[in-house]
Amino acid sequence: MNAIADETTRQLETAARAARAAAGALARAPRPAKDRALAAAAAALRARAPEILAANEADLAAAEGSLTPAFRDRLTLTPARVEAMAKGLEEVAALPDPVGRVLAEWTRPNGLLIRRVAQPIGVIGMIYESRPNVTADAAALCLKSGNAVILRGGSESLRSAGAIHACLAEGLRAAGLPEAAVQVAPTADRAFVGAMLAAAGLIDLIVPRGGKGLVTRVMREARVPVLAHAEGLCHTYVHAAADPGMARRILANAKMRRPGICGATETLLIDVAVAPALLPLLVADLRALGCDFRACPRARAIVPDLKPATEQDFATEWLDAILSVKVVDGVADALAHIRRFGSEHTEAIVTEDAAAAREFLDGLDSAVGMWNASTQFCDGGEFGFGAEIGIATGRLHARGPVGLEQLCTYRYQVIGTGQVRA
Amino acid sequence: MNAIADETTRQLETAARAARAAAGALARAPRPAKDRALAAAAAALRARAPEILAANEADLAAAEGSLTPAFRDRLTLTPARVEAMAKGLEEVAALPDPVGRVLAEWTRPNGLLIRRVAQPIGVIGMIYESRPNVTADAAALCLKSGNAVILRGGSESLRSAGAIHACLAEGLRAAGLPEAAVQVAPTADRAFVGAMLAAAGLIDLIVPRGGKGLVTRVMREARVPVLAHAEGLCHTYVHAAADPGMARRILANAKMRRPGICGATETLLIDVAVAPALLPLLVADLRALGCDFRACPRARAIVPDLKPATEQDFATEWLDAILSVKVVDGVADALAHIRRFGSEHTEAIVTEDAAAAREFLDGLDSAVGMWNASTQFCDGGEFGFGAEIGIATGRLHARGPVGLEQLCTYRYQVIGTGQVRA
Repeated sequence: MNAIADETTRQLETAARAARAAAGALARAPRPAKDRALAAAAAALRARAPEILAANEADLAAAEGSLTPAFRDRLTLTPARVEAMAKGLEEVAALPDPVGRVLAEWTRPNGLLIRRVAQPIGVIGMIYESRPNVTADAAALCLKSGNAVILRGGSESLRSAGAIHACLAEGLRAAGLPEAAVQVAPTADRAFVGAMLAAAGLIDLIVPRGGKGLVTRVMREARVPVLAHAEGLCHTYVHAAADPGMARRILANAKMRRPGICGATETLLIDVAVAPALLPLLVADLRALGCDFRACPRARAIVPDLKPATEQDFATEWLDAILSVKVVDGVADALAHIRRFGSEHTEAIVTEDAAAAREFLDGLDSAVGMWNASTQFCDGGEFGFGAEIGIATGRLHARGPVGLEQLCTYRYQVIGTGQVRA
Repeated sequence: MNAIADETTRQLETAARAARAAAGALARAPRPAKDRALAAAAAALRARAPEILAANEADLAAAEGSLTPAFRDRLTLTPARVEAMAKGLEEVAALPDPVGRVLAEWTRPNGLLIRRVAQPIGVIGMIYESRPNVTADAAALCLKSGNAVILRGGSESLRSAGAIHACLAEGLRAAGLPEAAVQVAPTADRAFVGAMLAAAGLIDLIVPRGGKGLVTRVMREARVPVLAHAEGLCHTYVHAAADPGMARRILANAKMRRPGICGATETLLIDVAVAPALLPLLVADLRALGCDFRACPRARAIVPDLKPATEQDFATEWLDAILSVKVVDGVADALAHIRRFGSEHTEAIVTEDAAAAREFLDGLDSAVGMWNASTQFCDGGEFGFGAEIGIATGRLHARGPVGLEQLCTYRYQVIGTGQVRA
């Protein structure tokens, strides 16, 4: 390890130890204190908006020349975006406290009362790209769920993140909570990300948020558990017994409402029985919305001017106005395609046949299966979680939208009257 | 990577891919098929007991000379132990099916019905030492929870494990389930363990079972999520308001019922207010059971012939008839000691003061906190889980005893009537 990495590791260890100490206090903080901190941070965001916008302008100026228009848009803050961050903090304050919920409770024949109680995970490491608002959103969710957090945003956004963090620190102070509960990386050195990923025992959970490159690097290198999805290669399957009008409405929404989100449909699977009648209508609908296609030979036999799909196309998360199209021979064939090419994120079936829907939903390994609904509903807000820190497609701890409840673990409290074990 | 490691990695990959395919069938297998497989495997264990005992004798003969008496006892099978394994399979068959349980269900304002449903994790890697019965116990829990499993027992027990595995394979065949759902390592090469630990994406979860050396190696090296505890450095805290008779009964049980299990108490914390009266009685009780002590200066001022404790003693999981003793100044002091030296496994308070108990239980970060009960109750059977594959002290997925429910993850099923997202 070189000297810079050594120094960065020391900085991470210092931050993580302070976070651990703060996590203890935060885990036991009553709801009003956490809500007060969020409200005070929202007030500080509004009061300090000019400083935040100035810091953001400095970030933009420093990165000038190396930014794509999309990147520049993600990095840019406006008065409206600062206000949205403040509102976001207030919305999280209004959500129920996930800590201390009794998740299960039972009494054993010997009289022992066993209670499973939600508690914070501990110290969370948040690694994200250059959306400054993630600094406020992620901090709010961690704070409300009683977790300390170390935030490491994209290096292009560090001035903006620092100015936003100052508001969160002000909120924590106002509520008498330890400031170290929300920290930003003390260095712009990229080695800090590596130090976070290696910090088993110091950081309990890493949540990466960003493009596939960032997330797969985090998943590959982390020695700390990770909650994330690398991609959302979602499918909408139009079954032979689909209501044609519903299929058209759902597919148009699932693909084109916002093509760039992880719950957007990337591949249409359509039963051979209905493809001749329905596929031309689906294609016309989507074309009117600006969508392009990559289609299998059977689909192209029905709509000849579709571009041909390669096998790689079916493995591609377009995140764009492009749809892969495959004609299938029923539920089993659709499931086989999804198992081969999917990312276990979200898949939907459109059908009026309850038995087919059951077969499809039971046959999926994905985090979310939907029946007669748009895949774009895979979202913490839409699930009723109030907010989400991300979507998880792994097999452990949490799957699907990760909200306040999923940022908790549990412990047992066993209450006896002097029982000893036989 | 050398040639042996390359070959071992290929063997693991072949096994894991077969396990993945089998996991799909097992995840969707109805309860009667899984129970039939377990019953048939139990029958096979009884029918093939002579073969199993012969394989075990060959294991014992091959290891002769290098075995400690305790190791030899763990490795040895007897007709009674084979019968206990068969009974264990039947007991798991009788447990409820954890797969498909609806864990939560709610309807959104737009009419979407959202259902969180338990499903198997997928492919589990079990790494254990030379107790042949773990082969049957772990396979049964994985099978019942719909998970495929790759079992890698200690190299000294591979013949025994192979003979037991043949019975499980017979059970799977009898029930029409894929044999690859339960596999034993195809090689005695120790590199196979390394290949399992590196198999991110192929194996979903590693469960190590054995001594601290094995478990910490697994935790340190694994690229796959691990559910485990490295040690159980459990505390019993006798509070100022403890019922003296209850404290004596609980401590004697918590320490000496079975000193070698992970839920055994290793350290007594006792309030300064009651130590002069109560500590001599507690020491006398435990001495009568053969226990020795390592005590702090304040405890030795009360019972002078206790051996002095070093700081390292308080960090030691004795797993033996030795108790560390520390006099403390109330709940906060007890919690500070536990935070410093504990392993977040199980801690108990003995008190008649409900407020003190609440403060203690709420102040713990441990997986299990107990009030007026023996720490030896930290066990899947005692919790009512029927059986356990281990105890987890990490912060994610599951904490405390890991039974059938904890061997499941969940997925969402979202049921609509044509909803699209605004």
